[in-house]
Amino acid sequence: MSTAGQVIKCKAAVAWGPGQPLTIEEIEVAPPKKGEVRVKILATGVCHTDAYTLSGKDPEGEWWPIVFGHEGGGIVESVGEGVTSVQPGDHVIPLYIPECGQCKFCKSGKTNLCSIVRSTQGRGLMPDETTRFTCKGQRLYHYMGCSTFSQYSVLLEISVAKVNPKASLDKVCLLGCGITTGYGAATKTANVQPGSTVAVFGCGGVGLAVIQGAAARKASRIIAIDKNPKKFEYAKKLGATDFVNPDDYDKPIQQVLIEMTDGGLDYTFECIGNTKLMRAALESCHKGWGESIIIGVAGAGEEISTRPFQLVTGRVWKGSAFGGVKGRSELPGLVENYLEKKFEIDMFATHQFKLEDINKAFDVMHDGDCIRAVNLLNLFIYYTVINWFTKIWSK
Amino acid sequence: MSTAGQVIKCKAAVAWGPGQPLTIEEIEVAPPKKGEVRVKILATGVCHTDAYTLSGKDPEGEWWPIVFGHEGGGIVESVGEGVTSVQPGDHVIPLYIPECGQCKFCKSGKTNLCSIVRSTQGRGLMPDETTRFTCKGQRLYHYMGCSTFSQYSVLLEISVAKVNPKASLDKVCLLGCGITTGYGAATKTANVQPGSTVAVFGCGGVGLAVIQGAAARKASRIIAIDKNPKKFEYAKKLGATDFVNPDDYDKPIQQVLIEMTDGGLDYTFECIGNTKLMRAALESCHKGWGESIIIGVAGAGEEISTRPFQLVTGRVWKGSAFGGVKGRSELPGLVENYLEKKFEIDMFATHQFKLEDINKAFDVMHDGDCIRAVNLLNLFIYYTVINWFTKIWSK
Repeated sequence: MSTAGQVIKCKAAVAWGPGQPLTIEEIEVAPPKKGEVRVKILATGVCHTDAYTLSGKDPEGEWWPIVFGHEGGGIVESVGEGVTSVQPGDHVIPLYIPECGQCKFCKSGKTNLCSIVRSTQGRGLMPDETTRFTCKGQRLYHYMGCSTFSQYSVLLEISVAKVNPKASLDKVCLLGCGITTGYGAATKTANVQPGSTVAVFGCGGVGLAVIQGAAARKASRIIAIDKNPKKFEYAKKLGATDFVNPDDYDKPIQQVLIEMTDGGLDYTFECIGNTKLMRAALESCHKGWGESIIIGVAGAGEEISTRPFQLVTGRVWKGSAFGGVKGRSELPGLVENYLEKKFEIDMFATHQFKLEDINKAFDVMHDGDCIRAVNLLNLFIYYTVINWFTKIWSK
Repeated sequence: MSTAGQVIKCKAAVAWGPGQPLTIEEIEVAPPKKGEVRVKILATGVCHTDAYTLSGKDPEGEWWPIVFGHEGGGIVESVGEGVTSVQPGDHVIPLYIPECGQCKFCKSGKTNLCSIVRSTQGRGLMPDETTRFTCKGQRLYHYMGCSTFSQYSVLLEISVAKVNPKASLDKVCLLGCGITTGYGAATKTANVQPGSTVAVFGCGGVGLAVIQGAAARKASRIIAIDKNPKKFEYAKKLGATDFVNPDDYDKPIQQVLIEMTDGGLDYTFECIGNTKLMRAALESCHKGWGESIIIGVAGAGEEISTRPFQLVTGRVWKGSAFGGVKGRSELPGLVENYLEKKFEIDMFATHQFKLEDINKAFDVMHDGDCIRAVNLLNLFIYYTVINWFTKIWSK
């Protein structure tokens, strides 16, 4: 029986207030309006940005109650008026940066930062200033235009990337944020050149994806930096050549790196969100041409600083959001690369949980063994069995 | 009678200690050693960097007594052993950034920051750890490898650019620092694109040269910013389209500029050395692609800062030294452009003084009417008459 045009009741992890654990609730999801699609979310990663906003420290995320989640994968259930680029049954990855193709940002050819719905999305609303979620008679806010911690979510047509349905959504959901962010920062924002030297500060999901991107670009030396040496095993598999634990040195990390590399690196990446490390990453760059890319999200009100001499002598300070990747145009290609085994995703999905255990996913995020925890919102048994068979098969 | 191989006695402006006025002294200039050239300096500009080091606030310039000056033009008097690229009689512009063509910086193709003699030059010495100047039995230090406040100076062969002798040295001496720095920052470091928007913070010699560079690149809008509206007349002649005096506004300058330009500028340039304005210049850039170039030299220990969000949302922070220009390769071309009247220099040379009046040149530097004060160390009457005839002719 078609659910199109009907309100759908389903389960979602709801955040009722800052700092509180999420609770699993039955919520109502309204049908998509004009230009919108309703998506059955099968899987979602949990990202540090979700945890940051949940903590209440994010000055731009104070809308409660709210359905978090922005790193998902799902299947279109129904579409609203005027939607032409996707149809029910299509596999899609939600995009927290839409791609309208019409605004001055999209048309510039210089950036992925489509800003057409920024003002409403930043306030947890759809463009008509309303939301599609209710729970116990209360309006629930959207998060980053995605809200993937719900079995069904409503998104803008311009906020979903249609991808090859052969790709398992419990893996490619991770392209919705961390992996694309790191890989794109290396291959697009920095545009790492063959034979160059790279240092990556922080080897979580984003940092590991930077390493994958730098290796794809045939960097000659990729230095992985983390205080947790467990991460180095993953870093090595993805192409890192050197491993530095800052705790092993008494010197500032920039001095360690400059000595290791005869003057500094061609590219450095900050993947943690620590403003002191952002400075260290810049100052680890080679005089004359080194470029440092900020990826991590710093705490509210925190600032970066350095001596201007660092820039006057040729270093470049940049940043990257979603790796500079245009979601609708470019994610389908990454999914094809994954299917052709040119692009690693599976290794990043170290943990799987049921929706009911989503708070555990937040807990394990700071564990050294966890790169990404994927929550399965639908078809839990299906994915579990498939993954079990895949593991057996690959042994 | 040839002076080659002899010690030359001549006049120079000597700085005996921080904060003291320069005094005109008879000094001895030793012959050039291997790889060196001795140059008869005919004209020299006075730059804010000279004044800064003279003030004693430059932590990297504490060598006294010293002969300042780094924006000069002269004629080779004699050459040391092994010098092949210039010979006596050649017209040259001294370079505070040499171009050896052999070091990893020169070979990189990415930077003009040749570092082959940085360690000795930074300490006021020639590469053999000695100096070529004495006065009253005391050693005088070199400054930035140039020391153009002397009628004769000794420089490295790799620190002079040979230029067309048809160009009057009392004008093209200004290519030794300010004009090249600003013009190169626009045309090389930023690589300003046709139709783009530009804001220039500070309309002294460097800022005006940025404006000239942006105009040469056919920027559609060039906003000149200065607290001294007298500068706007020069800015307009060189191609500025808009003029902003921050004193006319109650709002922060970045807000003024963002409102003027529907979201910010494609390129901004800080040409003053004020770290607060460096931040303002960055934050005046357009989200997604705006680039800000730091040119001004900040005070010792001062730092720049901003929210990392500024970079994550696509702005780029860069710096420029000598405009990214490789002196020996590129200055001759700028001189040709000047001779072909494609490149303005004369307008910058607003004041002329005898060597004896060099302290007056420092005094007028902060005057709104002064862009560059040129000191004539030799042939004062010749240049004065020539300039007088040129003015009559052009009326």
